[in-house]
Amino acid sequence: MKGWLAIVGLGPGSENLITPQVSKSLAEATDIVGYISYVNRLPQREGVMYHPSGNRVELDRARQALEMVATGQRVVIVTSGDPGVFAMASAVFEVIDDGPKIWCSFDIRVLPGVTAMLAAAARIGAPLGNDFCAINLSDNLKPWDLIEKRLRLALAADFVIACYNPQSKGRPDGFSKVLEVLNAECTGSRVLIFARAVFTVRESIRVVRLKDCLSEMVDMQTLIFIGASTSRVIKREGNCWVYTPRAVVL
Amino acid sequence: MKGWLAIVGLGPGSENLITPQVSKSLAEATDIVGYISYVNRLPQREGVMYHPSGNRVELDRARQALEMVATGQRVVIVTSGDPGVFAMASAVFEVIDDGPKIWCSFDIRVLPGVTAMLAAAARIGAPLGNDFCAINLSDNLKPWDLIEKRLRLALAADFVIACYNPQSKGRPDGFSKVLEVLNAECTGSRVLIFARAVFTVRESIRVVRLKDCLSEMVDMQTLIFIGASTSRVIKREGNCWVYTPRAVVL
Repeated sequence: MKGWLAIVGLGPGSENLITPQVSKSLAEATDIVGYISYVNRLPQREGVMYHPSGNRVELDRARQALEMVATGQRVVIVTSGDPGVFAMASAVFEVIDDGPKIWCSFDIRVLPGVTAMLAAAARIGAPLGNDFCAINLSDNLKPWDLIEKRLRLALAADFVIACYNPQSKGRPDGFSKVLEVLNAECTGSRVLIFARAVFTVRESIRVVRLKDCLSEMVDMQTLIFIGASTSRVIKREGNCWVYTPRAVVL
Repeated sequence: MKGWLAIVGLGPGSENLITPQVSKSLAEATDIVGYISYVNRLPQREGVMYHPSGNRVELDRARQALEMVATGQRVVIVTSGDPGVFAMASAVFEVIDDGPKIWCSFDIRVLPGVTAMLAAAARIGAPLGNDFCAINLSDNLKPWDLIEKRLRLALAADFVIACYNPQSKGRPDGFSKVLEVLNAECTGSRVLIFARAVFTVRESIRVVRLKDCLSEMVDMQTLIFIGASTSRVIKREGNCWVYTPRAVVL
């Protein structure tokens, strides 16, 4: 039997946001590999082997999956959101690039999903309505200096900025360093959005002007949007919408 | 009967990539509004009114939809990809911001989808594996100078750059101006990806080094990735994968 590997995105958390293509690959898998929280999201199916693992072992997980493909297994690596955005797809190709030549002949598919940024944007309006960028604030794999440089250039470009992985136990000051940069570069009326667990029952979304932002407003599960200078808030009963107009007049 | 509006993303083209949430809203709609090519993608359902319209009438289309919601209709605006990325969601909120106060009380939902950038990335490997940005190259609504400025800053940040809407009949030189900037700022070995109609039978994806790029390689339906300086190509029988490593060493 010929094995294959699918690296799939489960979306932000709701079953309603898993594509039929991803559901089909899960139904055909013999083995499911992934970070324990994502593997635990799936209903257990008889005859399937589940291989949950911890954080920060992406390369080991990728190798484990490829070795199972070599023995004819049909392997799915599950990720949250989209597999290509700060998730497992790049780790798999890093391992292939560095591994035995035979791995290049494997049947490997990446199945896209709704990444956190798109899900969070949808819940608050249309903050990504103009040009935007996505920055992973974790400095595990790149120096903080580069993150800060990218942040400053993104502000100069007036991109809407989606920040992933803003903080963790090992980086308690991650977001306060971002606030320092923003306070130096932007006016206090700049709009920020803090989104957590979108499209789930635990959903929380806050819209806050920069002058009122505190570093305590984020944790590792928070997706942050830094609005462009043109981003606007529409107030309504009980809450608001945020959007970034398509047009820019210089 | 209380009306509502859902602005939904149909993904890149394959039915397999439409989320269950979007399918459900289409099944409940009384009226479906959108650019003619996207409305035509849907199977016709009895009892539903279809309102296809042409290009460049986004604001009229948004107003038409909101006026139907006011009369109790259940309206879906369909877009390709994700509704919040260079699509209809921002147009709807622009119209609401400028419209009668009552529109703010309407039940309006944005339902996310797989945007072209995520779909194209999945088909070629993991080009978005590090920080990235998305730029709409159309200068209908913003001056070319701003687009060029954003492009230069994005290159300085070493973002992977996803370019939407690179060319059109009215802008035949759109992409050649991008190539001029790239040739001035990058080495000839920089990796570009030209993706068209991904996840459909007409799919075409080309990976080309900057020195071999020609402006004829794009049309309005092409999604272009400009790799980061760190993006890598893995050659394999008949084709290749492209990925951007997660780590950056300065």
